[in-house]
Amino acid sequence: MIQAQTLKGFRDFLPEEAIKRQAVIRQIKTIFEQFGFDLLETPALEYASTLLGKYGDEADKLLYTFEDNGKRLVGLRYDQTVPLSRVIAQYPDLPMPFKRYQIQPVWRAENTQKGRYREFLQCDIDTIGSESPLADAEIIACVLTVAKQLKLPSPSIAVNDRTIFDTLGLSKKEIIIIDKLDKIGKDAVIEQLNQIDQDGLVVFEKLEGSQKTERLIQIFNFLKDSGFEEGKDYRFDPFLARGLDYYTSSIYELKEQSYSAGSLAGGGRYDRLIGMFSGRELPAVGVAFGFDRLLDALTELNLLEIHKTATQALVTIFSSDVVNESTQIAHALRARNISTELFLDIHAKLEKQLKYADKKGIPYVIIQGPQEKEMNVVNLKNMKTREEKKGISLEEVITLLG
Amino acid sequence: MIQAQTLKGFRDFLPEEAIKRQAVIRQIKTIFEQFGFDLLETPALEYASTLLGKYGDEADKLLYTFEDNGKRLVGLRYDQTVPLSRVIAQYPDLPMPFKRYQIQPVWRAENTQKGRYREFLQCDIDTIGSESPLADAEIIACVLTVAKQLKLPSPSIAVNDRTIFDTLGLSKKEIIIIDKLDKIGKDAVIEQLNQIDQDGLVVFEKLEGSQKTERLIQIFNFLKDSGFEEGKDYRFDPFLARGLDYYTSSIYELKEQSYSAGSLAGGGRYDRLIGMFSGRELPAVGVAFGFDRLLDALTELNLLEIHKTATQALVTIFSSDVVNESTQIAHALRARNISTELFLDIHAKLEKQLKYADKKGIPYVIIQGPQEKEMNVVNLKNMKTREEKKGISLEEVITLLG
Repeated sequence: MIQAQTLKGFRDFLPEEAIKRQAVIRQIKTIFEQFGFDLLETPALEYASTLLGKYGDEADKLLYTFEDNGKRLVGLRYDQTVPLSRVIAQYPDLPMPFKRYQIQPVWRAENTQKGRYREFLQCDIDTIGSESPLADAEIIACVLTVAKQLKLPSPSIAVNDRTIFDTLGLSKKEIIIIDKLDKIGKDAVIEQLNQIDQDGLVVFEKLEGSQKTERLIQIFNFLKDSGFEEGKDYRFDPFLARGLDYYTSSIYELKEQSYSAGSLAGGGRYDRLIGMFSGRELPAVGVAFGFDRLLDALTELNLLEIHKTATQALVTIFSSDVVNESTQIAHALRARNISTELFLDIHAKLEKQLKYADKKGIPYVIIQGPQEKEMNVVNLKNMKTREEKKGISLEEVITLLG
Repeated sequence: MIQAQTLKGFRDFLPEEAIKRQAVIRQIKTIFEQFGFDLLETPALEYASTLLGKYGDEADKLLYTFEDNGKRLVGLRYDQTVPLSRVIAQYPDLPMPFKRYQIQPVWRAENTQKGRYREFLQCDIDTIGSESPLADAEIIACVLTVAKQLKLPSPSIAVNDRTIFDTLGLSKKEIIIIDKLDKIGKDAVIEQLNQIDQDGLVVFEKLEGSQKTERLIQIFNFLKDSGFEEGKDYRFDPFLARGLDYYTSSIYELKEQSYSAGSLAGGGRYDRLIGMFSGRELPAVGVAFGFDRLLDALTELNLLEIHKTATQALVTIFSSDVVNESTQIAHALRARNISTELFLDIHAKLEKQLKYADKKGIPYVIIQGPQEKEMNVVNLKNMKTREEKKGISLEEVITLLG
């Protein structure tokens, strides 16, 4: 007998969880498409050379790489931005700007901890080939629209421009410290800045007093035109840094103010990454939703409907001599797009069948005994209220469940 | 500069292809759910011990296995049946029968050839915990309903029962030869059977004259009750063998009679696989669609709509002083669930914007110049017919595109 277990950091999604995730994905996809982003899918495995050296040294250690049967060094997808950059280089005839969304799992050999997994879903949109601030604004507007679609009560996007750090002459080390402001607070940031040979307070105050760049001013104007409100839906935050090496200008993060466990989406402009693949520099801007974090927020804020099953009705088998009729009832309901399970054990007692519906969370049970069969009607039992409508026609059932 | 290429046997799905695939997946999911199957997802990586030894020696060589950072021997999902069996053993409280569907990529280190890939999608349904022939019949009915939903002109399912081979005392070697009937013809099958110390003709004739088992008779009755027609939608084929080791009774394959490149789905009953994981034997029956083959058939039979993009409208920017208005138009269309792209370069000539819509395959273009802005109307250009409706309200646009 083989031990049945999942690898640490990997998850099964049983129906209740899978159905919940799928409902959220559907809503995200709808908004992505509303904004004119088209679906792209890339392989789980890439040449390791495609992945290595794009994310920084620390991240390279988290890549799942191995030698395949053909002695090629390959690696599992670590994010969706690098495969996108590879795609842009590989298909030079793609119409530009190229706007795509991608919703696929990525793999990272992380130390697992609460809410951190080795396989997780990313939901990305990116616009390649436009340096217009309108492209940045559209990405941010799309993120806000997703947040509103999912009914987050108070989503807000912090926006910054990396070039502000350049203008102030801040080093990478300093930026990493500044990025921690939310977590460790002002005093600790200033202290840590002091430690690396700087007057931390001066740096802090310079940043605090810094102004929006020209790009940010334009982005903010476009967002206003789209009906979003500065200070509420989006705001300038000169302390926002974001970790990834490849950002070159605007950066942004979505937070939900009534959810404290971190940002739900993050992205920015990365005008030099594509050039690493294609030789031709192409401006690019995008965002990735951390799907698990988002789902955790929606769950904590009680914004998700829970369904143990997508099945709407169980057709029982009253006795083995009405199997034909029960089969036909199930067939008729399905033809009207009502998700229907037919009880499979033709000798089971009705009580057992009702218990099964209960355990599985199927909301309605349809019963046709010999008497109902005679009259060409059924009984419809609501498993939540336990109420039973007796002797109704199949058409009535379809109207009630449809 | 890094070479931009995909690994052999792996594919990018650019929007046109991805949109097509997604449309088919949606239809398959709808039917799976109509039949009361619920979504399950399992990890891409499993312990190698979960995967090895389940598919037969030849298949084990095709597994992608490697050592992870924690020195565990892991492997990429090879199919969805073995992970399902692992799930059943790992969560003993799942309501039985457990009916699930699963649509995820699987990976096989195959020699690549036309239509054979190293990463491909499988679409599975399985019912665990029921030995009722009704369970088999429901799987077959679901496959036929998918085929009809996808408008295949003449789908037909060949059905057999592996126990017929047992009754006739056929060896595994003989079964492998019999399985080739479709490919090599009757004479070659008999000749190959002769070679392995048998009177091939006798074996062939015994099979030809064999009768449906009790299970098959019941399955066929249930299918008739569901409105399917024997001889047309499904038929008994005593020569159907199917490769996989783990089938124990009913087996079946979907073919489309106007498509000759092979079967589109296959499955059967496997009552002993689950026991390898859980210690408790659990009857099981299921089917897997080969998604690429199915898509190839649908393409060859001209049954798929082609859309280069899911975007319905491009909102142009007539000049940089109407950016606000154009942004608002895009915003209004999106709010009414019309997929809308806003042109991003605010200084581009209108001609360039129209060319972009053409290249991208966006069917409608919306133009608002200063004059239209004054009158609060737009022009709507149909990019296929080149017809332009001038001076219509946004509400009219929404009605036309919605």
